[in-house]
Amino acid sequence: MAKLGIGIVGGGYMGKAHAVAYAAVGAVFDTPLRPSLAMICTTTESGAAEKARSYGFDRSTVDWRMLVADPSVDAVVIASPQETHRDIALASFALGKPVFCEKPLGTGLEDGRAMLKAAEAAGVVNMVGFNYIRTPASQLARDIIASGEIGEITYFRGEHTEDFLADRTAPASWRTRGRANGCMGDLAPHMVNGALALAGPIESLVADIETVHAERPGPRGGREAVDNDDQGQFLCRFENGAMGAIFISRIATGRKMGYAYEVFGNKGAIRFDQEDQNSLWLCKGGAAPGRDGFTRILTGPEHPDYLAFCQGPGHGTGYQDQIIIEAKDFLRAIETGESVWPTFRDGLAVSEVIAAAWRSSGEKRWVSVDEIRKG
Amino acid sequence: MAKLGIGIVGGGYMGKAHAVAYAAVGAVFDTPLRPSLAMICTTTESGAAEKARSYGFDRSTVDWRMLVADPSVDAVVIASPQETHRDIALASFALGKPVFCEKPLGTGLEDGRAMLKAAEAAGVVNMVGFNYIRTPASQLARDIIASGEIGEITYFRGEHTEDFLADRTAPASWRTRGRANGCMGDLAPHMVNGALALAGPIESLVADIETVHAERPGPRGGREAVDNDDQGQFLCRFENGAMGAIFISRIATGRKMGYAYEVFGNKGAIRFDQEDQNSLWLCKGGAAPGRDGFTRILTGPEHPDYLAFCQGPGHGTGYQDQIIIEAKDFLRAIETGESVWPTFRDGLAVSEVIAAAWRSSGEKRWVSVDEIRKG
Amino acid sequence: MAKLGIGIVGGGYMGKAHAVAYAAVGAVFDTPLRPSLAMICTTTESGAAEKARSYGFDRSTVDWRMLVADPSVDAVVIASPQETHRDIALASFALGKPVFCEKPLGTGLEDGRAMLKAAEAAGVVNMVGFNYIRTPASQLARDIIASGEIGEITYFRGEHTEDFLADRTAPASWRTRGRANGCMGDLAPHMVNGALALAGPIESLVADIETVHAERPGPRGGREAVDNDDQGQFLCRFENGAMGAIFISRIATGRKMGYAYEVFGNKGAIRFDQEDQNSLWLCKGGAAPGRDGFTRILTGPEHPDYLAFCQGPGHGTGYQDQIIIEAKDFLRAIETGESVWPTFRDGLAVSEVIAAAWRSSGEKRWVSVDEIRKG
Amino acid sequence: MAKLGIGIVGGGYMGKAHAVAYAAVGAVFDTPLRPSLAMICTTTESGAAEKARSYGFDRSTVDWRMLVADPSVDAVVIASPQETHRDIALASFALGKPVFCEKPLGTGLEDGRAMLKAAEAAGVVNMVGFNYIRTPASQLARDIIASGEIGEITYFRGEHTEDFLADRTAPASWRTRGRANGCMGDLAPHMVNGALALAGPIESLVADIETVHAERPGPRGGREAVDNDDQGQFLCRFENGAMGAIFISRIATGRKMGYAYEVFGNKGAIRFDQEDQNSLWLCKGGAAPGRDGFTRILTGPEHPDYLAFCQGPGHGTGYQDQIIIEAKDFLRAIETGESVWPTFRDGLAVSEVIAAAWRSSGEKRWVSVDEIRKG
Repeated sequence: MAKLGIGIVGGGYMGKAHAVAYAAVGAVFDTPLRPSLAMICTTTESGAAEKARSYGFDRSTVDWRMLVADPSVDAVVIASPQETHRDIALASFALGKPVFCEKPLGTGLEDGRAMLKAAEAAGVVNMVGFNYIRTPASQLARDIIASGEIGEITYFRGEHTEDFLADRTAPASWRTRGRANGCMGDLAPHMVNGALALAGPIESLVADIETVHAERPGPRGGREAVDNDDQGQFLCRFENGAMGAIFISRIATGRKMGYAYEVFGNKGAIRFDQEDQNSLWLCKGGAAPGRDGFTRILTGPEHPDYLAFCQGPGHGTGYQDQIIIEAKDFLRAIETGESVWPTFRDGLAVSEVIAAAWRSSGEKRWVSVDEIRKG
Repeated sequence: MAKLGIGIVGGGYMGKAHAVAYAAVGAVFDTPLRPSLAMICTTTESGAAEKARSYGFDRSTVDWRMLVADPSVDAVVIASPQETHRDIALASFALGKPVFCEKPLGTGLEDGRAMLKAAEAAGVVNMVGFNYIRTPASQLARDIIASGEIGEITYFRGEHTEDFLADRTAPASWRTRGRANGCMGDLAPHMVNGALALAGPIESLVADIETVHAERPGPRGGREAVDNDDQGQFLCRFENGAMGAIFISRIATGRKMGYAYEVFGNKGAIRFDQEDQNSLWLCKGGAAPGRDGFTRILTGPEHPDYLAFCQGPGHGTGYQDQIIIEAKDFLRAIETGESVWPTFRDGLAVSEVIAAAWRSSGEKRWVSVDEIRKG
Repeated sequence: MAKLGIGIVGGGYMGKAHAVAYAAVGAVFDTPLRPSLAMICTTTESGAAEKARSYGFDRSTVDWRMLVADPSVDAVVIASPQETHRDIALASFALGKPVFCEKPLGTGLEDGRAMLKAAEAAGVVNMVGFNYIRTPASQLARDIIASGEIGEITYFRGEHTEDFLADRTAPASWRTRGRANGCMGDLAPHMVNGALALAGPIESLVADIETVHAERPGPRGGREAVDNDDQGQFLCRFENGAMGAIFISRIATGRKMGYAYEVFGNKGAIRFDQEDQNSLWLCKGGAAPGRDGFTRILTGPEHPDYLAFCQGPGHGTGYQDQIIIEAKDFLRAIETGESVWPTFRDGLAVSEVIAAAWRSSGEKRWVSVDEIRKG
Repeated sequence: MAKLGIGIVGGGYMGKAHAVAYAAVGAVFDTPLRPSLAMICTTTESGAAEKARSYGFDRSTVDWRMLVADPSVDAVVIASPQETHRDIALASFALGKPVFCEKPLGTGLEDGRAMLKAAEAAGVVNMVGFNYIRTPASQLARDIIASGEIGEITYFRGEHTEDFLADRTAPASWRTRGRANGCMGDLAPHMVNGALALAGPIESLVADIETVHAERPGPRGGREAVDNDDQGQFLCRFENGAMGAIFISRIATGRKMGYAYEVFGNKGAIRFDQEDQNSLWLCKGGAAPGRDGFTRILTGPEHPDYLAFCQGPGHGTGYQDQIIIEAKDFLRAIETGESVWPTFRDGLAVSEVIAAAWRSSGEKRWVSVDEIRKG
């Protein structure tokens, strides 16, 4: 088994998730390439050393350039703030090192375009971390739709709703500063990617985005203005003609992980809610009279990427397992030299839709995604 | 107990539902006014006689004018096709007879305006049959919102989804002919009324409405064009500033009675689905750490209009009971001389929103409801 | 249409439910026999007159013998306390009048046997009010099982759980006095009847019954001993060899109408909970790999006794509708002269099982129901 | 960080799960002791080498004695068939090496007693692998009960239902041979342990256990007798007086991971189903009138052992995470020298209950667990 040195930039929540994933993925999936935790980069010396020790990295640094350049690092995982994505990715590609970048691709369209261009120029494996669409249930949803099992799609509804800022007395923080950290910047990419994966490219949309709680207690007293959005939604048409609607919120009281979708087709329908991530609800047309309805399918060994985690159906996978599946796919891409979905190109497609939503909300009109693509 | 002669125009599904309701309502609610089934009007002599016998009316007719004018008829229930609503209502008001009219008010704005004008000119009790909002659960939802229990509303999502025309090989029928019988004409009024009741007046919206299956098998062979809509949706803003979204469909495979809504407030949230009409899901802010979540409240004697049907919580009410509740409220209005919500004015408000949706979909732009009101 | 005078003994919760049912049933089901509310009997003159007025009876009495004997009363509905059942039924049968008796048949085995004997000697229509098994969903469950759709039954689990006495500070009342009003006496008959209807006769059982809260506040202060049971359960074997288990409780905190069952067969399974009475969950064997699961079937027009209440699936029926269905079936039995399930014979079978449970709990051993039948 | 060499006996499903767990646990929980995968033992040379490579062990063997004795192995995980547990555990204890043993403790009481005796004589850390009770949700359930939040327990119902042998044409295999591999031997220990953890020691029980499908197709044609049980159930009383019931089945059509329980207390209730392992349903008494019900609590950072896996509530953990939690606790026990629940003593308590169930089913009578303890 070949070894592959992994360097992770970012020691927070996502950095840890990837560290755990690379520690476990070889045993879970029996991957031909076996990752080793080569180096981690965080913002302070002591923090970096501490994270390295805690997560099991060989070494640490506070300079991502050092990490990218280090010979022990064969592939780079970017789990740092969005404004750092672009430079790290470009530096990695310049050295021919594969890059896995957390969603979204940088802070917006410009970053995404530059990152895609660099990736394609370098011809190096690249991938974006849309983990939620990689659960066995959502992979199953994609398979069902792709196989025509529910017929032609007539309607798609997606949401990503959480409530971590529903309380208007919650203090201002990095989350309430900067468009990239707002609801459309930070949460929406997951569900937009889900929509594209499940229902195909979006042709046009009309959006409404707002900051509901315009001020919050400042971290050191007083009040601080919130300069990004709390919720946003849009109607859309997919290129295949299907109608769609997407809603994103960080103030949806009571919702914790409301990454949820419904896909109606002319022969069946699918419903999914990440808060019960081990179930997919399927209604198939053609049932006997009086036997029609949604069936709760518990994920199991027949479904994508499940068996590696547990032998029995219904035993279930969780959040961390999604990251392990990503790690497996990234390793496979490196092994074969062929990027796997979603690549930077797919990540940019997500950013284009979100840019269209911003323009639509600002100009209060329908906007075609093509209009964004053309600048 | 005073008697009140009820005349029902229409012998179909809804006519029957009202007939049963007036047969039962006195015993259920101990109403001071006791209705008697005076006369029913349907389209054929034999049909009318048959319905009268079957539902227990004293007499029958094929001429709604005769019914309206008959001295035994003290109040008129209109359960006939939408194009008949206006004339029947106007004739009833001319005689000073209270009118209960099935939703929506006629075939559109013009009918609704004329009907409201006549009702107010006559000063006679008038009411519209939006039955779904009268379940104990939805009444509870209104109470919870009105009391401020979930704080200020930040988002409303409503849908009314069914699948009776999801199969594209289902033949053409009256349902696929005429805008008034389409998805926005026939299904949407329920949920638009629900939205107004729960979240307040709508200020503006942007809609998308379409006919997905443009042709269907003709009832006598061949193909027939479908000239009304299969599904429609809109984004909106309420006058209180809250965002909203509404989706209506008759082709939502697997959905049977998807009258469903979510209302997010800054102190709590509500979720409801008519397919489980005896539950309301409530999340209240301020729970102890780790005890947060949606509570499934089963309707019971503490909730509006429940105790008359059953003493125990969770024993449940059904579709027919909604119509009985309407009958009770209509009788109460007649008894007191004061119309109860929703009146023709409320019904017209619903029609205005739907007219705005049509205009928005046609012109592909945001439309304010005020624009409709002003013509 | 022939008229049929209905006399109801009992003006409480159940008396009202039956009054409403007979007011509505003709219109709902177009029954050939049309009931009229002839007379009601309650315990006080003023109460009886008040109930007659409120529910719409022609006359009232405080003497059930007068009601039974009255020529305007063609059929008798017994909705009075259990200790009155026997005498009323016997007097009715003596006059050849059909009897509908609320569950259970009197206060125990002796009553039940006498009542069955009288019914069969008189050759008069007789029926017992196990309403919960008459929902469209539970009728569907019976049909599915009877048709072999889930194969041979291997396991049955039933419960009837409510929580109206869960709070140990709830005061003593008639509900806490007398075995007939306890949990096994008052609640258990519904689910035992359900078990027999769904899985067939019970061969033997082993039970455990207890009073958890042995004292309660007296209605006039002080403490009062509770002399009946709060909860009980038994394991059983059905005559077909299937295993079973039943649990009954009035102290099951949080459960409001927990009439619920699961039936496992070797080709499928069924799950039902009355708290969502318009759904039946069906798992059918033989699904394609990865498509296995329980399907939530919403009751609709294809299912028993549904269409009379509503045309559309998922629109739903409620508690009162169950009583209307009972009324329809009782009228049909009278019309045809043939009793319909569940007759007094079926009601006695339920009492035998409960008697076996009491003996088993007292003697702490397995008891065959046959042992009870033989005395 | 100190290193700890882990030796795993068994290369099947559970062996892999533990291998993954020890690969990941350090990074997940930042454990002071860091495990290394020292050696794996399986039944064939090639298999052992292959598993070692696949799971990432340094070395492999087919002789568990070699593994136990190897100086690189500091702690032993037994994930091999039940009949091997005893010898391996005793050999490990003899060398003073901590043992984690998969449930149940050997093939029955005799094994369990010997294993406990050896563990206590050696004074070495010992633990049993009841993983399902270690989900954040079930740990939360334990905490809620222990804190008195639902008051005194009045009733416990547990089940462990799966359907992997529901199809009677499924062929005979090791699962259908030998009592230890039957439903009571293999599945029941999980839920019995859960019952003891949640509701306390069981005082007595009455059980019924059976083989439903007595023959199955032989693996090489013909028919083979099944010599172990397909399903079993018992009523019980806990030492605290609460009633209980437990049902175990491997033929429960449609159930995939039906490890489910309900706990009723006099101040609240809990419901849980492993098929939705990231939710705990809690009903707390004392709600405002009309606001009573079960709340679906999604597990989150406030709940035990959750935060290490994901920062956000509702993001969810899965089967593999349970094993990682076990690994963390085993490491902590080794580090501190104090065994953590459930120890071999707890495992033996489970075996005693199951032995009581077997005796009860055979003799068709109530059996006290004390009777088993005394032999």
